[in-house]
Amino acid sequence: PRCTEFDMAYFQSYSHVGIHEEMIKDRVRTETYRAAILQHQSSIAGKVVVDVGCGTGILSIFCALAGAKRVYAVDASEIAVQANEVVKANNLSDKVIVLLGRVEDVEIEEEVDVIISEWMGYMLLYESMLGSVITARDRWLKPGGLILPSHATLYMAPITHSERYSESIDFWRNVYGIDMSAMLPLAKQCAFEEPCVETITGENVLTWPFVVKHVDCYTVTIQELESITTRYRFTSMMQAPFHGFAFWFDVEFSGPAIFPANIHGYSPPVASSDTYSPGSSQRKKRSKSNEALVLSTAPEDPPTHWQQTLIYFYDPIEVKQDQVIEGSITLSQSKENPRFLNIHLEYASGGRSFVKESVMR
Amino acid sequence: PRCTEFDMAYFQSYSHVGIHEEMIKDRVRTETYRAAILQHQSSIAGKVVVDVGCGTGILSIFCALAGAKRVYAVDASEIAVQANEVVKANNLSDKVIVLLGRVEDVEIEEEVDVIISEWMGYMLLYESMLGSVITARDRWLKPGGLILPSHATLYMAPITHSERYSESIDFWRNVYGIDMSAMLPLAKQCAFEEPCVETITGENVLTWPFVVKHVDCYTVTIQELESITTRYRFTSMMQAPFHGFAFWFDVEFSGPAIFPANIHGYSPPVASSDTYSPGSSQRKKRSKSNEALVLSTAPEDPPTHWQQTLIYFYDPIEVKQDQVIEGSITLSQSKENPRFLNIHLEYASGGRSFVKESVMR
Repeated sequence: PRCTEFDMAYFQSYSHVGIHEEMIKDRVRTETYRAAILQHQSSIAGKVVVDVGCGTGILSIFCALAGAKRVYAVDASEIAVQANEVVKANNLSDKVIVLLGRVEDVEIEEEVDVIISEWMGYMLLYESMLGSVITARDRWLKPGGLILPSHATLYMAPITHSERYSESIDFWRNVYGIDMSAMLPLAKQCAFEEPCVETITGENVLTWPFVVKHVDCYTVTIQELESITTRYRFTSMMQAPFHGFAFWFDVEFSGPAIFPANIHGYSPPVASSDTYSPGSSQRKKRSKSNEALVLSTAPEDPPTHWQQTLIYFYDPIEVKQDQVIEGSITLSQSKENPRFLNIHLEYASGGRSFVKESVMR
Repeated sequence: PRCTEFDMAYFQSYSHVGIHEEMIKDRVRTETYRAAILQHQSSIAGKVVVDVGCGTGILSIFCALAGAKRVYAVDASEIAVQANEVVKANNLSDKVIVLLGRVEDVEIEEEVDVIISEWMGYMLLYESMLGSVITARDRWLKPGGLILPSHATLYMAPITHSERYSESIDFWRNVYGIDMSAMLPLAKQCAFEEPCVETITGENVLTWPFVVKHVDCYTVTIQELESITTRYRFTSMMQAPFHGFAFWFDVEFSGPAIFPANIHGYSPPVASSDTYSPGSSQRKKRSKSNEALVLSTAPEDPPTHWQQTLIYFYDPIEVKQDQVIEGSITLSQSKENPRFLNIHLEYASGGRSFVKESVMR
């Protein structure tokens, strides 16, 4: 695909150092990637690696230090110029080849054994960088090659969050003694029209999460990501005001084809709201195959720079214990800008049903 | 002056509720204004008030509750529509008249006794809203009328802030064991090219502040604000790495012409770096006339949403105790967008001199 003005603006945004500083300082992110590289060192040492969206080059350097024969560090942002300086200063120019350009446009004159990429956006799919990983895979990855991370899963769950609702909405009911309730409709729109990136905790979550989308990086196609629709069904584990839905993801760093269960095959997600018995006191993690490392952005796990993505309703819905919450969600690339995410959310509970459209810009 | 596209974008930015929520929740700001209205209640009760840039209308309502005969609440942002709803819901429509438009454009068919406005931007002058107060004064204020706040003072002081410098700059020297010093030039540029709005404490300040500009709202002219230049001279009170300059302001709510000292006259600022004996252990506040209320955004006072504005150097300068720091500063409206602030800073210490140009956008 051709490089659009949206792509240009996107690449430009990554030329600022601050965004890389924030990502590198996210220790959960960076240390899990480093641990995954070490865990898969036998698949990396002596091999050819491509780092899709290398940024400052830190993952490429981790791979070089893990023994990679050659690492192609590709980034379409000007930050690649900096990555090249870092590589030179570390005397790794013979191993790490920095390419400034899109994976769609740059040329690599050999097949690669490993693709590594930190492509995940807010709500997993915002920014659409997974498409670049797919392109790199289809252009250069050897059959049986390794992709890190190998799998990604997007979750959703209904949440309660009275403090957040109060501070932005109920606040207007009494402002230094003045009733400013006339602000409420606009306040709701301004606060909750678009998705919010915020940190919540496990305490805010009303029930087990539901898998919106499981991505196998070995087999996923670009077409499959253009629009994703799924129906969900939750059973609230408590009585509470239901304020909206939280979304988060995890990614798994599984081995390549040598693990039969993962050979270019889709492993159906184990988790869904019906997998667990409601009311079970122990919250279990989805079991990951092969002791794979998992980078999780779940509310109950240590916080990351991705936080969680929240879609709040304008008005909470009072739910009782065991009350069913059901509906559907569609995530699709915005026509306005393919890096934006359109979110069409239908939800029903207690005999009332709603539709909420939002755009993550 | 005609309404430019920059004005339109500026007014549009204030149509979002979040910005008003942040300002109203700044208790130092809102409670000081409320206290000032009560302190000057005898000048407000039964009188005509204009609130320049009324936002959600809270200051107009405070004035109405303090007994104003009529309050003209003027705002060029769509938020004025909300202010009108709030006024109606509080049964104050007979007292508070909301006008959607610029003070340059709206019509008020009577003279006013009081102008109230919360016009201060970051570094006092960013956003240039003081010009609207001057316009309102020249169009409508009766001779001897009250302006709240009546005076404003912009300060600067040299600071030391090793933690801030380390976390953005030195950070790159060792990133998970990798030397990424090659990032330093770009990291310095990205972190410190433009002014930063951040909270510092009195501990960061190397010496007494210097008055960059004292504004008497009764007499200041628009021309006087287009470009402000002053020379400064500091004597460092300690040995420390000198990382840049902090800017902050305070505003004073003095009475109108009944206090002779304030009759349309410029009270020369008492504070300057030379007013205090360097090394004096007790830091004294500038004495304000007539027990006037002061809203301060100084590092040693409780934090506000204005925080402080910092201009950092790319490299710190080691200064000794009693070392002189001198130079000049020019603040001028940007030609690109008059609401932006161009900052031309010259500084010299220990025999070396520097120039730093930055723009607050």
